[in-house]
Amino acid sequence: MRVMGVDPGLTRCGIALVESGRGRSVTALDVDVVRTPSDMELAERLMRVYTQACHWLDVHQPDAVAIERVFAQNQVSTAMGTAQAGGVIALAAGQRDVPVRFHTPSEVKAAVTGSGRADKAQVTMMVTRILGMQTKPKPADAADALAIAICHCWRGPMMERMAEAQKKAEAAAARHRQRIAEAREGSRA
Amino acid sequence: MRVMGVDPGLTRCGIALVESGRGRSVTALDVDVVRTPSDMELAERLMRVYTQACHWLDVHQPDAVAIERVFAQNQVSTAMGTAQAGGVIALAAGQRDVPVRFHTPSEVKAAVTGSGRADKAQVTMMVTRILGMQTKPKPADAADALAIAICHCWRGPMMERMAEAQKKAEAAAARHRQRIAEAREGSRA
Repeated sequence: MRVMGVDPGLTRCGIALVESGRGRSVTALDVDVVRTPSDMELAERLMRVYTQACHWLDVHQPDAVAIERVFAQNQVSTAMGTAQAGGVIALAAGQRDVPVRFHTPSEVKAAVTGSGRADKAQVTMMVTRILGMQTKPKPADAADALAIAICHCWRGPMMERMAEAQKKAEAAAARHRQRIAEAREGSRA
Repeated sequence: MRVMGVDPGLTRCGIALVESGRGRSVTALDVDVVRTPSDMELAERLMRVYTQACHWLDVHQPDAVAIERVFAQNQVSTAMGTAQAGGVIALAAGQRDVPVRFHTPSEVKAAVTGSGRADKAQVTMMVTRILGMQTKPKPADAADALAIAICHCWRGPMMERMAEAQKKAEAAAARHRQRIAEAREGSRA
């Protein structure tokens, strides 16, 4: 599975491509940081991020896009721009029928370091080790994008299976409710 | 001036078109609320909002798009979706070279009611009166989109003039600093 990991942002947006193999083996295929100047108009900045995302999607044709989920509580001043950047990337993926999934920062940290409260240095170190890279990915946004992609390689299939199982359980519950309703109707008639 | 006003959102996104005439006269040309089901995938919801925004921009060819600025503090659970919806609309406008401006909720309220702390009912009442509408626009998102468009019709030209004046002042200051630097170089030589 080929996963495009995204650490969304307007000033710096990390994008990475990771391929998963057997078991937990993962390989980094590409990583980049899209930057837009903070004095540029918002629409222009979003266009740059969107254009780059489209380019990545068209060139690399990933099987899924994994984006870090932003929380409004963190860094209020930049949270809105971060959400908007994530939004235009999700749009670009949706326009190409590539499924988009979100992972929270602690899910990403837990996946790569074993602890949801790991710091940036630990995440970078583990990403470097997991991918067998010669040097640490820089800046932090690049390492984060790789971490998100790794996280999805490992959690994604399980998430899909769980969603599938939940759908089946809901369908079974609905059938059960209908049978009960029918039985009641029958006893009334 | 033709202004497309947007009250961004994923569940309900208000879009309105208002034309300004002489002085403070404004006319509503169209208003609609784009809805997307909350159980739909985020990328799909963003695509719907984006497609509708593109359609409005292409059909109505507004001179500007005015979007209500979202704050992370308000309604944390929906703020991210709201920002993402605003982001894809700003992107659609940028792709068509239509300038995008943002107004805060209190700027919008102050523009139409005279008070930045007016409630929804007051905003709706004033929008209905200002636009000379026979019935109140419904739902609240439609009234809000109209209010944002009106706000931009009235504040927009002033904002552009102020931005222009600030640019000129900055250029003058830069020239002044350069002259001083040159004079110092001259006195040293």
